[in-house]
Formats: sequence, structure tokens, C-alpha cells
Amino acid sequence: MLNNRQEHKGIRLILIGLGNIGRRFLSILDRKAAHLDARYGLTFKLVGAADSQGAAFHPRGLDVATVIGLKGQKRSVADYADCGSPGMAALELVQRVEADALCEASPVNLQTGEPGLSCMRTALSKGMHVVTDNKGPLVLAFAELAALARQKGVELRFSGTVGGGLPAINLGQRDLGGATIEKLEALPNLTTSFILDQMARGLSYAQALAAAQAQGCAEADPSLDVDGWDAANKLVILAHSVLGVPATLADVQVQGITQITVADLEKAQAEGKAIKLVAQAVRQANGTYALTVAPTALPASHPLARLSGQQMGIVYHTDIYGTISAAITEEEPIPSAAAMLRDLLSIYA
Amino acid sequence: MLNNRQEHKGIRLILIGLGNIGRRFLSILDRKAAHLDARYGLTFKLVGAADSQGAAFHPRGLDVATVIGLKGQKRSVADYADCGSPGMAALELVQRVEADALCEASPVNLQTGEPGLSCMRTALSKGMHVVTDNKGPLVLAFAELAALARQKGVELRFSGTVGGGLPAINLGQRDLGGATIEKLEALPNLTTSFILDQMARGLSYAQALAAAQAQGCAEADPSLDVDGWDAANKLVILAHSVLGVPATLADVQVQGITQITVADLEKAQAEGKAIKLVAQAVRQANGTYALTVAPTALPASHPLARLSGQQMGIVYHTDIYGTISAAITEEEPIPSAAAMLRDLLSIYA
Repeated sequence: MLNNRQEHKGIRLILIGLGNIGRRFLSILDRKAAHLDARYGLTFKLVGAADSQGAAFHPRGLDVATVIGLKGQKRSVADYADCGSPGMAALELVQRVEADALCEASPVNLQTGEPGLSCMRTALSKGMHVVTDNKGPLVLAFAELAALARQKGVELRFSGTVGGGLPAINLGQRDLGGATIEKLEALPNLTTSFILDQMARGLSYAQALAAAQAQGCAEADPSLDVDGWDAANKLVILAHSVLGVPATLADVQVQGITQITVADLEKAQAEGKAIKLVAQAVRQANGTYALTVAPTALPASHPLARLSGQQMGIVYHTDIYGTISAAITEEEPIPSAAAMLRDLLSIYA
Repeated sequence: MLNNRQEHKGIRLILIGLGNIGRRFLSILDRKAAHLDARYGLTFKLVGAADSQGAAFHPRGLDVATVIGLKGQKRSVADYADCGSPGMAALELVQRVEADALCEASPVNLQTGEPGLSCMRTALSKGMHVVTDNKGPLVLAFAELAALARQKGVELRFSGTVGGGLPAINLGQRDLGGATIEKLEALPNLTTSFILDQMARGLSYAQALAAAQAQGCAEADPSLDVDGWDAANKLVILAHSVLGVPATLADVQVQGITQITVADLEKAQAEGKAIKLVAQAVRQANGTYALTVAPTALPASHPLARLSGQQMGIVYHTDIYGTISAAITEEEPIPSAAAMLRDLLSIYA
């Protein structure tokens, strides 16, 4: 992280999506501005931002605190004085505004990937780097986006899409060079971990789900999480980015946690095990990977067995690097938002 | 890890040190040659090698299997037919032979850093990249070597020096961008973990040490490990490379495990805790770090508490990335040797 270079770089950013992640990302940029300048010689300038109501942009940069303030008042960034443009679509913003990198944090859309997918395509085509926390476009169009980035000589980074702030993808891409990954196991979904954790303490599935919803860690419609599809999405991204396998959701055998009972958890506990929703890729004799998401009883010695409802983790079983595991405790989605900063620094620092 | 580029690169390596790590590194290179070619378009060619008896070199490359064979017969690489040079020092090899990268795996010498330190200085000065598993030169001359690498525009990589194959340094350097590290805790020493593990099963310190020595996981003179200095060396490297602190061994408060009794371990167990030799850096109010190595009773919920005698681990407590931990199960030092391949690929792939 040391950087003794003296030159100073100004980086122009466009941010799409001003929800939980986008706003936290802006707060981090704001809070860390002096540190990023001193340590890396970098100034990030927000030249454009869009939410679902419109956009705002200015070539000299928007005031980040003002944008955060508008969102805190449940208003749109389009209300930004003199710079706002109500009704302007995110895609139009990306098309019109000159910037160095797109930060894409719009809502996950697993049917179309929009608006993120078009924004990412456009940004890459314009020669902008793209960092994103948005799984949708990657699950739907990983190969296309990666090829476009290569062709344009720019970076596409997405370390926050699997396990929030956990560097699951970076570990697999950067630290296992030359290895054969025999097996990968992950707990990439906080909602299901939280629910199973509560059920292990005696709550019924319905009670645990209600507790998760009350804490804001489950959606009103929890099906994406509890049916295992969120974990499957993350497994597809790991398959592309780490295993080199162009998988789609159709390649993943998915089973959620809705059939798990307190009796199942008690039985596992009695055997010294813990039931977790594990996303897994197992290398087959022919070199392909079997991809599954399923509730799995893990023995107490397993690195993922003792993770709590606020932790996510991954284990890589390799031929030459032994077994490497990593976990994150993420009580709020701040690390997920910080992952976009990590990705920017991996490009520019 | 994907690399779709078509160009092919041949990389000329010099390897210093043909002990446990050096030989295993050569075995990995040999075994992975086809994979490295297919996946990364890279061919590594061993143009020079040295052990304590002499050296061998050839511009078209030595046969790796022949070098491994000689060492398997307890002979010197200097006995390599037509290419061997008995009595040639490692430093002379580095001075005379043209190569792209130095792989430095000579024995750790904490008094002088030699022969590794001079070889690394010379290689960097010649514009060669350096990858090393050797703590000695880094503990003694980190700042000098890092500055020399920067000045020459080459890479100095040493991911295997802390925790073997555990990417402890990479995690800290690459995945925590922009963060303040509030605290770092590591179990970077297998010998002490093994001994404490055996003592927790009821063996006395002397019995556990003897078991470690019988398994080859403790030296005949175990003081470097059991007195905490090996862990302290690794903490100094973490301080320089991750925390940006130019620490020396004199800055680390060190306490080993020789005073720990079975009664201490039993008392900790009764309290639900486990005693581990923890290397720790704690950020102070003034921004400096307090560096300590000491036996520490960790609560069961601590990510390092349940690591076995064959595991090493690290935990980073940060402001914006939550708490991130990583661990490795390393039953043989193959991952430590593979770390030099990881470092080479991080430079060339």
C-alpha cells in the first residue's frame, strides 16, 4: 500500500446507483479524500451521478456531501442545484459525460441486467474502466464484458460482487497462480447464514426470516436469498473469474434453505456439525466443475462451520497452495461499498 | 487467472538455495511447465542454480529434473555435467549469468542476511526481478531493497516469507486499499502452533518439542521458533510491507512459549480459550503501531483460536473492510515453495 511517487492524479468518476452501496461508497470517498491524496496521490472527482429519478453532472465535480445530503432527504440527485437533470437516464449520463471510470452500483436485475449492463457496455466501449458491486450484468454477460474490456485495454473489476468486502475473487485470481483448484466452497450469502444461525438457536424458519427482515438483512420477498439463487449468482461469477469456466445459472444445481427444519439443525448439532448454505465447485476427472448450492452439514473442523450470521467465507482446496480459507465479518454493508474503492485503487494506485 | 493473450514469453531464472524450499520450487516448475505454457504463455528456464557447494549454469537452461536428481543424491548442483562449477559462490553466479529474475531461497541468516542479501542487491542492481522466501535479507534491509527495486523499475516479491503459502502480505497490500488497519494478528509460525497443540492434548513442553523435532517441524536448536523470534521476523516484514512502518526487531516486544505449562493450557481450555503464539500490531492514537509477539489466550470465537498445529493464519481489523481473516493448512512446505511461483506469475502473467 506504500506509494512514494510524487505525481498526483485526478480521477473522474461516474457513479450509477445511489442506494445502500452507492451512498456508502460516496461517504467513504468523502471521508478518505485526504488519506487517498496523501498515500496514493489520488483525487477522485465525482463528475456524474444517477439514480432512478435522474442524474446530475459537472465537469469540475459534484460536491459529494451535497449528493449524500439529497439522498438522506429521500430526494433525487437530479435535484442537485444547477447540475441536476430530472429524468435523465443513467445510460444517457454515461454516454454524455467524459470520465475515467464508471462505478456501477445500480439495483441487481437478473432478468435484463439493466440499467447496469448497458451502462457498463457503454463505459467500456468509451475506454473507461469499470468497477461494480452489481452481480446482474456479470451473471448475464460476463464473457462479453470481459472481452470488451480486454479489447479496449481497460479494467473491469468486481471484487465486491462475491462476499461483499471479502476478497474472494482476488484470492482466487491473484494468489493461486499456477494451481489447480480441486474444490471451492463458499458461504457468500449473509441472509441465509443469519437465518440458519437463528434457527440453530431454536427459532422456526418463519421466526428467523421475520427476524432477518426486521434487521434489514432479508428483503420483503426473500426468495432470491432463501431459494439459493443469490449464492448461485455468486458461484457463476467465481466460475468465470477464478475457475475460467463460462458457466450460466442453468449449470448450477440449486437448493435453498426453506425446507430446513429446526429438527435438521438439532440433529446436525448433536453430530457436532453445522448446516450452512454452501456454494460449491468440485473439479471432475475431465477438468470441468460440478456447481452446486445446497444446505450442507459441515463438521466442526471445517473452516466455514463456525462462521456466524454476520460472516461470509470461502475455501480454496488446491494442489500446490494447500487449503486456503478466508472470512469477513461484515456487520453493515460498508465493506461491500469499500470494495469499489479497493477496485479503483487496484487500477490507479 | 485467465489469460487469452497469444504471445509467448520465455523467462530466464536463477535459483539460489536448493534446500527444502528450492527443490520443491523446482519440482513445481517441472510439474507445471505444460500448464504454465498453456494458461499464461510462459516458459520458465533455469539458467543458473547454486547451493552451498557451488553452482551450475547454461544460457539455454539446465534440466530441472537433473538438478532435482543431484540433490536427491545429496550431491551439489556443481556436479551437473558440463555446466557445474564447484566452489562458485551464489553471488558470483548472479554477477556472471544473464537472467530475468532471481529466485532466492538460501538459508535464513538473521545476522548478515547472506548469501541472500548480496545476491538480491546484485540482481536488483542488474535490473532483475527478485522473488524470495528468505526472511533474513528483508528483516535486515527491507527499506534498502525496496528502494533499489523502485529505482531500477523492477519487482521485489516475497509473499512466501510470512505464513508460507498464506497470502498474508498480498491481502494486506492489495485488498485493504484505502483502509486504516486498526489491528493485525497473526499465527505465522507452525512450530509453536504444533507444540502448543500437542501440549493442549496433555504432552509436556519437552515431549511436545521432541514430537515436533521428530516430525521435522522443529529444528535441533528450536530457539528461533520457540523464543518467538521467527514470528517477530515475520511481523517486521508485515510492518514494512503492509503497515508502512520501518520497524526493526528491536521494535518488537517478544515473548516465546517456553514458559507455557500444561496447567496454563488447561486453565485456558476450561475458560473456553486457546493459547496461541500471536504476533500482533496494534495501532496507537498517534498512528504508530505497538508490535508484540506473545502467548495469548484467544476466545473460541476468535478466527485464530481453532487453527490446528498445521495451520497458519492472519486477521486484519480495519475501518472500512470490516474484519478479514485468512488461514492456510500447510502439511508440507509445498505452498511455501509455490509462493515463489505465485510471485513470478504476479510479475509476468
